[in-house]
Amino acid sequence: MKVEEKIKQLGLKIPDVPKPDANYIPARRVGNIIYISGQGCDINEMSSIKGRVGEFVSEEEGYNAAKFAVLNCLAVLKSEIKSLDKVKKVVYLRGYICSSSSYNNQHKVLNGASDLLIDIFGEKGKHARCAIGVNSLPNGIPVEIEMIVEVEE
Amino acid sequence: MKVEEKIKQLGLKIPDVPKPDANYIPARRVGNIIYISGQGCDINEMSSIKGRVGEFVSEEEGYNAAKFAVLNCLAVLKSEIKSLDKVKKVVYLRGYICSSSSYNNQHKVLNGASDLLIDIFGEKGKHARCAIGVNSLPNGIPVEIEMIVEVEE
Amino acid sequence: MKVEEKIKQLGLKIPDVPKPDANYIPARRVGNIIYISGQGCDINEMSSIKGRVGEFVSEEEGYNAAKFAVLNCLAVLKSEIKSLDKVKKVVYLRGYICSSSSYNNQHKVLNGASDLLIDIFGEKGKHARCAIGVNSLPNGIPVEIEMIVEVEE
Repeated sequence: MKVEEKIKQLGLKIPDVPKPDANYIPARRVGNIIYISGQGCDINEMSSIKGRVGEFVSEEEGYNAAKFAVLNCLAVLKSEIKSLDKVKKVVYLRGYICSSSSYNNQHKVLNGASDLLIDIFGEKGKHARCAIGVNSLPNGIPVEIEMIVEVEE
Repeated sequence: MKVEEKIKQLGLKIPDVPKPDANYIPARRVGNIIYISGQGCDINEMSSIKGRVGEFVSEEEGYNAAKFAVLNCLAVLKSEIKSLDKVKKVVYLRGYICSSSSYNNQHKVLNGASDLLIDIFGEKGKHARCAIGVNSLPNGIPVEIEMIVEVEE
Repeated sequence: MKVEEKIKQLGLKIPDVPKPDANYIPARRVGNIIYISGQGCDINEMSSIKGRVGEFVSEEEGYNAAKFAVLNCLAVLKSEIKSLDKVKKVVYLRGYICSSSSYNNQHKVLNGASDLLIDIFGEKGKHARCAIGVNSLPNGIPVEIEMIVEVEE
């Protein structure tokens, strides 16, 4: 099945590419490796959830925010390689979870991203990753995700 | 000397590969580069030290935790390439140190990782790195380390 | 125009290479990719600004600190490749901004780095990036930056 059909089947769709709100580009390619800039969890400039997981944001809301951040990563990736069918493997996921001082299930929040990637890409979607708790993220988003992806030539 | 003999000589041993407690894999290879998922400092599921450096965890305990995190990275690496003698060079180390607000010797804690890598691998173990203080890490671990390693074909 | 002439024209100069204050090297090369260790914003060991953005450090001071951190990255890069004219493209910038809990304009601070790279390198200086807020950084610096750069053979 084509990747975008799979995404549709999951009841989701690739959002518009988030506009960088600063002086950078959404992705940079070196050979067949694509580095995707840190993406937040706002979709299509609709105001989305803000705050720290463990405070105003629940674990489940954080899990969903991680999903949205991955969808934004995929929007960027698609704009770079035109078709998501060219993904060879997801290499690495780094997830920053804005966390209250006492919250330490960042890995459960980041599963929102990991589960979705594997649902969409199967074996190709498997990835190494790192989940980190931080005290503040740009614009008050609860989750920011950066991805490294290997693509077909 | 073989790498594992060297590790033995240092009075250490490669632990079991930590089981990811979430939906990801311990390492992903692209060409000859291996990306290792963020590893904590618990060894063999024995409960290990928890908390923030500068609070309940001392600098020395943090230094040792960084050592354990590297041993976990090496466990992952070995399971990926079978023999640690295939390491060509350690490329990059990123160390997240769960820190009290007033603690700012993250670089001294991360030396636990750097010193051990150089003790084990010598010139090949030299690496670029980044030490970062954060307010929270998965499961309350004081140190999380991710590594990029170049290996022989 | 040569890169260093451009830097001079901007009223700046490449500082001395910061000495790692721990057991690591300033950069590691794999093929044509250079990984630069996290650089702080102190220049030439002159004491520089310390503290959190949103607390004792203003957004504008943070912006300037990000500029200094990039200059330190370029010092490292130059020592590695001898001439900055060999830069093919800046690939990735990761900026850790030591932030008060309520500060969430990390992206504006990191623009100090991004703007300077584009002023210096033009198209080649465009990069993907990630801006992250953290509660503590080594030696109390407000900004730490790591860079990945592709260089000519």
